[in-house]
Amino acid sequence: MNKGNLFILSGPSGSGKDTILKKALERHPEIKLSISSITRDMRVGEVEGEKYHFISRAEFEEQLARDMFLEHNVFVGNYYGTPRGPVEECLANGGDMIVEIDVNGAKQVKQKMPEAISIFIMPPSFEVLKNRLSNRGTESEELVAKRLNEAIREIKCAYNYDYIVINDKLEEATEDLLSVILCERLHIEKNKKFIDEVLEKC
Amino acid sequence: MNKGNLFILSGPSGSGKDTILKKALERHPEIKLSISSITRDMRVGEVEGEKYHFISRAEFEEQLARDMFLEHNVFVGNYYGTPRGPVEECLANGGDMIVEIDVNGAKQVKQKMPEAISIFIMPPSFEVLKNRLSNRGTESEELVAKRLNEAIREIKCAYNYDYIVINDKLEEATEDLLSVILCERLHIEKNKKFIDEVLEKC
Repeated sequence: MNKGNLFILSGPSGSGKDTILKKALERHPEIKLSISSITRDMRVGEVEGEKYHFISRAEFEEQLARDMFLEHNVFVGNYYGTPRGPVEECLANGGDMIVEIDVNGAKQVKQKMPEAISIFIMPPSFEVLKNRLSNRGTESEELVAKRLNEAIREIKCAYNYDYIVINDKLEEATEDLLSVILCERLHIEKNKKFIDEVLEKC
Repeated sequence: MNKGNLFILSGPSGSGKDTILKKALERHPEIKLSISSITRDMRVGEVEGEKYHFISRAEFEEQLARDMFLEHNVFVGNYYGTPRGPVEECLANGGDMIVEIDVNGAKQVKQKMPEAISIFIMPPSFEVLKNRLSNRGTESEELVAKRLNEAIREIKCAYNYDYIVINDKLEEATEDLLSVILCERLHIEKNKKFIDEVLEKC
């Protein structure tokens, strides 16, 4: 059996990354999403193992010491990390997995698994990005400006990714994201054995 | 503007290549199909410029001498060829083009345009191939055997292609073919200018 592929998905706030990802996984439920381990407290409505694994600081630090994370980060005093085990298991079983992380995490995963394929979701223009971040309506001007600066910082890292998906129209962006994932399965290197098998029967 | 991509599409009789191609072009009409120039007589119902350009032997030989074909072939005494001009024009204008040719033509195109991306459509198994070729019902056993041998000869060349699309289910195979075409547009190398433009506005 062929090994599956690991895809790194990044994109700034306002890129529409989460919506695209949700639509893509609805169309191709065989693609798995990596679940991060985090040390912050569980919030109301959150379920263990759904979006996150909630573990203690001590557990996280012990796993970190044993190199059990593909990447990790500290945010407002809490640890966030991508566990290596489930990714390796999924790939070994021929499955594809997506890890949704920021530009910093992406860099760490590429160092540990250079064969991972990285995809950056871009807004179609700076104006659209600005509108998307302003029109949420729930945040102060200050917070919008902060998000915009953070988005620009992330977009500057887009050059390091393997593929760029421009989210102008949601349907097209979803198709584009899926095309990268599907296409990687079709490389001749992954299909030589299949050709062998067909020809053996002739 | 980025240059478009040229895709070489091959697959044996019974691979379902024509049906997949038709469905893919319906979903993405912006993808152009190369029209071959041929020297055989026009048949009833055929229209100049629809599937073929009908030209004289003398014209073909003159164009051949001026290296105006990406590939050509002689079949039952007639010339068949892929004109270079429309391909180069389409690509220069940022468009993608598919040239549907056999394994011999594919080899010639790859020599003249090594950046062309080649895709081979495979039947899901030898049994299915045999059934598809037998069940047409209109041909003699001898002709079926001949087609089968020809298909095996072509499948032996599949190892030289960049991508393999296995046509088990038509819808999935169509999505796979499109994924190769869409994915090639998303490479970082083709999108650096776009990132520049977004950042310039910041």
